[in-house]
Amino acid sequence: MLKKEIRVIGIDDAPFNKFGKGNVLVVGTVFRGGSWLDGVLSTKVSIDGNNSTKKITEMINKCKFKPQLQCIFLDGIAVGGFNIIDVKELSKKTKLPVIVIIRRKPDIENIKKILVRLNKKNRIKLIEKAGSVVSVGKIYIQLTGLSIEKAREILKIACTRSLIPEPIRIAHLIASGITYGESRGKA
Amino acid sequence: MLKKEIRVIGIDDAPFNKFGKGNVLVVGTVFRGGSWLDGVLSTKVSIDGNNSTKKITEMINKCKFKPQLQCIFLDGIAVGGFNIIDVKELSKKTKLPVIVIIRRKPDIENIKKILVRLNKKNRIKLIEKAGSVVSVGKIYIQLTGLSIEKAREILKIACTRSLIPEPIRIAHLIASGITYGESRGKA
Repeated sequence: MLKKEIRVIGIDDAPFNKFGKGNVLVVGTVFRGGSWLDGVLSTKVSIDGNNSTKKITEMINKCKFKPQLQCIFLDGIAVGGFNIIDVKELSKKTKLPVIVIIRRKPDIENIKKILVRLNKKNRIKLIEKAGSVVSVGKIYIQLTGLSIEKAREILKIACTRSLIPEPIRIAHLIASGITYGESRGKA
Repeated sequence: MLKKEIRVIGIDDAPFNKFGKGNVLVVGTVFRGGSWLDGVLSTKVSIDGNNSTKKITEMINKCKFKPQLQCIFLDGIAVGGFNIIDVKELSKKTKLPVIVIIRRKPDIENIKKILVRLNKKNRIKLIEKAGSVVSVGKIYIQLTGLSIEKAREILKIACTRSLIPEPIRIAHLIASGITYGESRGKA
């Protein structure tokens, strides 16, 4: 049995101009269980670039909460457009299990087509590395470094206010509130 | 009796270079009671400038949560250094009561001396307008637009995790986490 107060981190990116260049804000929220926000982290990744794994790994590894962290939640496997996170690498470098949260069943075939069109075929491998998509209740997840049973247990603790884990909901509110001046939409 | 879920907003500014120029990030968090973060707002004010009242009023009045809001919490009466908030004006323009939260009893005489030295005597009036400093438990507050009894009741609902209202604690974590990459210090 996991403690109700396990420390988890949820990560989401800020809204950005899909036709723009430059960096996009990525926010991490450190929670004790599903209700107590302990800390806020942030970094920047390049739009459609390939530095998200490195930047997010650094953000997590250097933070003061690292020794207590027990799980990483990602909101999908990409930030800043097609800056796809190598979930296996992130898990290995942080020594933490990763749960990727997906609201709607992703159209992987369509995403692959876009990547081929953008001449970014190598990123298709990263999508495949994130593992198969499993449904849990009304959402979908991809798992690295933990069992589905353990993932269900962690989700039960973290999803206190909505269908998605509270750290992701709040990371989304912060990233969009800082960027737009007022938070909007859903993670 | 107030509902446990009354909507309140807490405001804090980001850390900044005291010898710098330019703008500083100001974050507002909209809470239901002391535990559910409903939304994040942000704006920018000039360091040592005099646009904080206008900017914060606008941020609050245009947000979608405005019709439900019942109280504003400020972390002290200044943001961005000496950009002092006209608390009476803020309360009047937003039609909301304001509770200024002060962790340590402020050395008003010293602040006034600094303002005289900076040739910003007119801001001393703003400090005086914020009302007398009252102790409540281990913190101090200044009140505009509500009674001390009502303020105590709201504080009881909002101070769920520490001595200060949760909306202020979280606004501080967000503002410093976005600015430094990792939240630190206390509101």
